[in-house]
Amino acid sequence: MVYLDNAATTPVHPTVVQVIQDALINDFGNPSSTYRIGKSVKHALIQARKQLAELLNVSETDVYFTSGATEANNWAIIAQANKSREFGEGHHIVTTAIEHPSVTNVTKYLETQGFDVTYIQPNEEGEITVQQFLEATTDKTIGWIAMAVNNEVGSILPVQELGEAAYEQKLWFHVDTVQALGHLELDYQALKCTSFVGSAHKFNGPKGIGFLVYRTYQEHNHLEPLLHGGGQEGKMRSGTENVPYILGMVKALELAKKDITSNFEKFEELQAYLLTSLDSIGISYEINGDQKNRVPYINNLWFNGNIASQMLIKMDLDGVYISAGSACSAGSLTESEILKAYYPNQSERWSQSLRISFGYQTTKADIDQFIHTLEKITKGKIDLWHSNK
Amino acid sequence: MVYLDNAATTPVHPTVVQVIQDALINDFGNPSSTYRIGKSVKHALIQARKQLAELLNVSETDVYFTSGATEANNWAIIAQANKSREFGEGHHIVTTAIEHPSVTNVTKYLETQGFDVTYIQPNEEGEITVQQFLEATTDKTIGWIAMAVNNEVGSILPVQELGEAAYEQKLWFHVDTVQALGHLELDYQALKCTSFVGSAHKFNGPKGIGFLVYRTYQEHNHLEPLLHGGGQEGKMRSGTENVPYILGMVKALELAKKDITSNFEKFEELQAYLLTSLDSIGISYEINGDQKNRVPYINNLWFNGNIASQMLIKMDLDGVYISAGSACSAGSLTESEILKAYYPNQSERWSQSLRISFGYQTTKADIDQFIHTLEKITKGKIDLWHSNK
Repeated sequence: MVYLDNAATTPVHPTVVQVIQDALINDFGNPSSTYRIGKSVKHALIQARKQLAELLNVSETDVYFTSGATEANNWAIIAQANKSREFGEGHHIVTTAIEHPSVTNVTKYLETQGFDVTYIQPNEEGEITVQQFLEATTDKTIGWIAMAVNNEVGSILPVQELGEAAYEQKLWFHVDTVQALGHLELDYQALKCTSFVGSAHKFNGPKGIGFLVYRTYQEHNHLEPLLHGGGQEGKMRSGTENVPYILGMVKALELAKKDITSNFEKFEELQAYLLTSLDSIGISYEINGDQKNRVPYINNLWFNGNIASQMLIKMDLDGVYISAGSACSAGSLTESEILKAYYPNQSERWSQSLRISFGYQTTKADIDQFIHTLEKITKGKIDLWHSNK
Repeated sequence: MVYLDNAATTPVHPTVVQVIQDALINDFGNPSSTYRIGKSVKHALIQARKQLAELLNVSETDVYFTSGATEANNWAIIAQANKSREFGEGHHIVTTAIEHPSVTNVTKYLETQGFDVTYIQPNEEGEITVQQFLEATTDKTIGWIAMAVNNEVGSILPVQELGEAAYEQKLWFHVDTVQALGHLELDYQALKCTSFVGSAHKFNGPKGIGFLVYRTYQEHNHLEPLLHGGGQEGKMRSGTENVPYILGMVKALELAKKDITSNFEKFEELQAYLLTSLDSIGISYEINGDQKNRVPYINNLWFNGNIASQMLIKMDLDGVYISAGSACSAGSLTESEILKAYYPNQSERWSQSLRISFGYQTTKADIDQFIHTLEKITKGKIDLWHSNK
């Protein structure tokens, strides 16, 4: 199996599986219970929050565990938008046209609730700039939203600079850091944002667990609960805590952070190897997205003349697992909204591009196999119905 | 260890742990991906939904997986309330004063949003009746909410009859079935409700997974997403699916349903054993809640003159784990709101009652140990600071 779709999801690290299994067996007590076997689980939860806060260099009181980044994005954005309007600060939000659906579909929802949203398009260099955000900002603007790393093309957005500018403008700033966490070194303490989110399954943890970091740095506290109930998570996120997955997520981030530098260097090597291999066998491509500011672990390539959906089927038959963009469209192979935003006038790119994304377990042999299959496809050497692997 | 707090949470069944572990290792693909290892996970998810629907005798298209019952209660109630108001049907909701915090704190939230809520108190027999709901209903009423089994005292509410009446009144009806699922035989197909919810960790599954069953039987469809994003769960509940826990939850319910009759008989035996044992050694008690309609697996007893918080500490020292009510108050030992609703004029009951709740693993020896410790406590034979256990 050649798995090159780590931006969609990652295999759970064996150590993380073990942590989860141990907790499922031994830590079954309800952390809200007052007796020993509840308190020991509560203690594990407190330690996990503390460790996550240390790994991110943030305050542990600002960490809230959620069922994933989708919940965290929904929660932080909707709460901040509603509170801002309640405080009479305005109803206009600035974000980008290349956000993940768990942000875009939240801002679209907010538009149905009377908010105005500006979606910044990448400029001709494929960049999103602070200047664009400032130009879109009016006296009705309440907050900004941006991702740290784009999930489809790997572009790095200037979230540090956006944060400084948002702070000066007295706006809240929500950052979707899902594709950066554990892979790209970011200074989360210095990142001037009100909130950012993570999803364990993007850094070799399980699916169904994530977190929100929310901190108050402007006048008002703009967070309020999305889920009401038993008052867990400092009365901000009700629901009995999924302690096994929380422990697993923190272990996964610990492992990812430990190797973040060496993995990043490996990703740079793999990226160079991928591109030079393509060059050497004469398969032409163009790199989609921001050419200058991008991570090495997400590579989105336009193979002019080759339909992505056809290539994916053939790749699948050869045991090579990649994708044409976000996996979140529930299995549908529609044209990429992200590529449309980058290349509004180049419709052929929208359906002729592949995303190759690396994980800690990716090897050069994986890339060799991908190239081998791609060569068969692009040079007509594979027959969809008679593939014999 | 003597664990008699199964209404708070249950140990994860070893078979369920195995199912989760297998899926964590083998089924890591993203179910929204188009290639084989995504599709196989998608297939497992489809099968799990189908099996859950069969176990509940409902349509699989009405099943939505959530991060737990708190999310499911929030989602169904808030969506139905908002939609009803949007349709101009009114803004009044009838529920009971003995709901779980994940319902009560949702209706309290709705009150801040301009809804009116009537909280039905149990009558002198400790019953909640259809008549009470009908009397509280006005031409502004949009929906009813009731739990099937109370989590603190074990009272069984007449949800079947409430459903019939709600249907006649053209109201939506949301049922919190958390404490019934897997323990009390209910005909979910015949239950005339728009929605009901489950939480895996109440029937020996993991914490952090649950489900909502929502079906349209009135004119309008009142469900709308709470979480916006990638469009999973038929575009109704976004977020990458937690397939290992979903498979674990369905296995847990399968196991619980298989033994539901024999376990129920065992719970009746254990209940009788508990009460006759108390009688035989002369510890006086009164059963809290509905005297007639109650489940045998949740027993809430008033031990007149003994402070619950003191008893719990001593029980804990003896390795006996029980509680004084809902575990959801984040470890705080406040007076029970449920007992206040049942006994508004008997304040001594509020802080002198214990909940003893059984699970499939409970034995008579557990009850013996509980009684033994209780005897030491009530007869002054235990010294809090010099316990030698």
